[in-house]
Amino acid sequence: MQESLEGLGEFGFISRIRARLSQGPGVVLGPGDDAALLRLDPRMLALFTVDAMVEGVHFDLALSSAADVGWKLLVASVSDAAAMGGRPLFAVASVGAPAGTDLAVAEGFLEGLAEAAETYGVSVVGGDVVRAPVLTASLSLIGEVAEDAVLRRSGARTGDALVVVGGLGAAAAGLELLRSATSGGEGARRLLAEEASLASAHRRPRGLVSEGGRLAGLGVRCAIDVSDGLAADAGHICEESGVGVVVEASRVPLAAGVERAGALLHTDPLRLALAGGEDFALAAAVPQGLVEQVVEAFESEALAPIAVCGRFTLPGQGRWLALPDGSRRPLEGGWDHFASGSGRP
Amino acid sequence: MQESLEGLGEFGFISRIRARLSQGPGVVLGPGDDAALLRLDPRMLALFTVDAMVEGVHFDLALSSAADVGWKLLVASVSDAAAMGGRPLFAVASVGAPAGTDLAVAEGFLEGLAEAAETYGVSVVGGDVVRAPVLTASLSLIGEVAEDAVLRRSGARTGDALVVVGGLGAAAAGLELLRSATSGGEGARRLLAEEASLASAHRRPRGLVSEGGRLAGLGVRCAIDVSDGLAADAGHICEESGVGVVVEASRVPLAAGVERAGALLHTDPLRLALAGGEDFALAAAVPQGLVEQVVEAFESEALAPIAVCGRFTLPGQGRWLALPDGSRRPLEGGWDHFASGSGRP
Repeated sequence: MQESLEGLGEFGFISRIRARLSQGPGVVLGPGDDAALLRLDPRMLALFTVDAMVEGVHFDLALSSAADVGWKLLVASVSDAAAMGGRPLFAVASVGAPAGTDLAVAEGFLEGLAEAAETYGVSVVGGDVVRAPVLTASLSLIGEVAEDAVLRRSGARTGDALVVVGGLGAAAAGLELLRSATSGGEGARRLLAEEASLASAHRRPRGLVSEGGRLAGLGVRCAIDVSDGLAADAGHICEESGVGVVVEASRVPLAAGVERAGALLHTDPLRLALAGGEDFALAAAVPQGLVEQVVEAFESEALAPIAVCGRFTLPGQGRWLALPDGSRRPLEGGWDHFASGSGRP
Repeated sequence: MQESLEGLGEFGFISRIRARLSQGPGVVLGPGDDAALLRLDPRMLALFTVDAMVEGVHFDLALSSAADVGWKLLVASVSDAAAMGGRPLFAVASVGAPAGTDLAVAEGFLEGLAEAAETYGVSVVGGDVVRAPVLTASLSLIGEVAEDAVLRRSGARTGDALVVVGGLGAAAAGLELLRSATSGGEGARRLLAEEASLASAHRRPRGLVSEGGRLAGLGVRCAIDVSDGLAADAGHICEESGVGVVVEASRVPLAAGVERAGALLHTDPLRLALAGGEDFALAAAVPQGLVEQVVEAFESEALAPIAVCGRFTLPGQGRWLALPDGSRRPLEGGWDHFASGSGRP
């Protein structure tokens, strides 16, 4: 008989969690009390962020393993820390699951979370395990950032270059290919075998912590992580900074394989990049005087690929996508959790 | 037509959230970026805790308003801070809701959360709003505590008195009366009118922040908040401290009205206190040499009522409830989220 969460019980499962999670420096008291106790570096600001994921909305256990979900939950917050120029340190997670949840699912989730925590040097110091109708998870993360080297959404100025670190469209392409492959798509299966990075971009995204820190170190003061798609996330910078933007369609950095995925899926690869989201790339506003230096540093230091793909404009000038034929259209597409017709995954 | 979350959209709702929440000292950057930025007191340890609530498991919108749910979500974490001897400071919340959620429910939740945040001096600095099959919410809280004045679950020693601050059983009595009143219980309705504190204990619990701090200030080093019922929570102290416990049934402090509620509900009021949970009272282990001083301080300073109701024993001696007739029975009853037959609310 398969073991379930119900069989093990809340406190049994919590014991397994405590045994699996290792605690790094700064943790004065880890899981098991009413709260964890932490020692933070007094020279730094603390950063604080939260992300939630819900089965059937953010993930589908037919396409991702429970371990993938645990991994991605942590990386979503790690990416937020990266987008502030900061370093992730401590996390707490709350997990909701049906009583009959297969223990392998619960332990897989824990394993993926623990692997991501080890990869990014995060101590998971506490949590809450509750009953819920579907698998739901929320993770909050504390990090640190130097006060004079923060990347804010509000830091873009008219004339700054729009720079993207990392490739775009891979997570969305991977998700659509996984769906197509699951429903019998032979071409999708072949492409996924060749371009394993596409499935992996959806299942096991990376957080660009070194890259965020390097941008801040080079004097950049504005970034966001691309979680809703470049169109929406560049839009968030525009809102918070009070500027407009022009994105050059031909210079948007598509991740490897996205072009072929687009052809196979009969969709514009640019749509995957602009509206797909969950790539956890970084979009930054870089003052023109810094662009060359930033690009050179990234290219010489084996960091993620960097691309200049637009510029921020005067506030009244709106948000546009400039096409290779010289025309332009409104920069659109993104993810609104409550909008009609939206349907991720 | 009633306005729904779907109509307003994720970003529209987030704007309303940002407008409603006020930011206190220490908040360098509030909601709206990839992460909030905080300045913490370098002389203090940071405390970090999380609590989650799920519709149909932790609350029933027929018995509590959405504002009650928002209030209670924050107070659950405030109570964790109190149980460490600390002060709550900053919170982030993730909220999951169906797309068709009545906007009044979403705004009610926000209002209750904001009221609790103001009451306890907590700045809500960020959040995540997602789609989910039922209303779900998770809140993480950062607080501070002096390193030499921490209340830990592991701090009980053999011989210490078991002390309870606050009354027990009111939240459980309130919940059972609300259920009975809703299903037509005339007596329950009358008692709730007289003892509004019982419904309120379920809907709008209080966190004993001053009391936790005072215990720590008086030299106490062990406490827990009573969220699972005194039997389970005293048990948690026993596990973490490696001791046994004897609870004196006749000295367990029942909250006002709990005795009459028990009679009306045909249940032992002591069961409500031992197994009911969610009272957010504090259970502490107080060294015998401090008991008198602690009790006197609490009685003279208009803090919550305090009661000595048991003592911690040698580890091998187990966990017992001593009855007035001189007999004893195993200390049992509490809340396991995945156990068969459990059913809160």
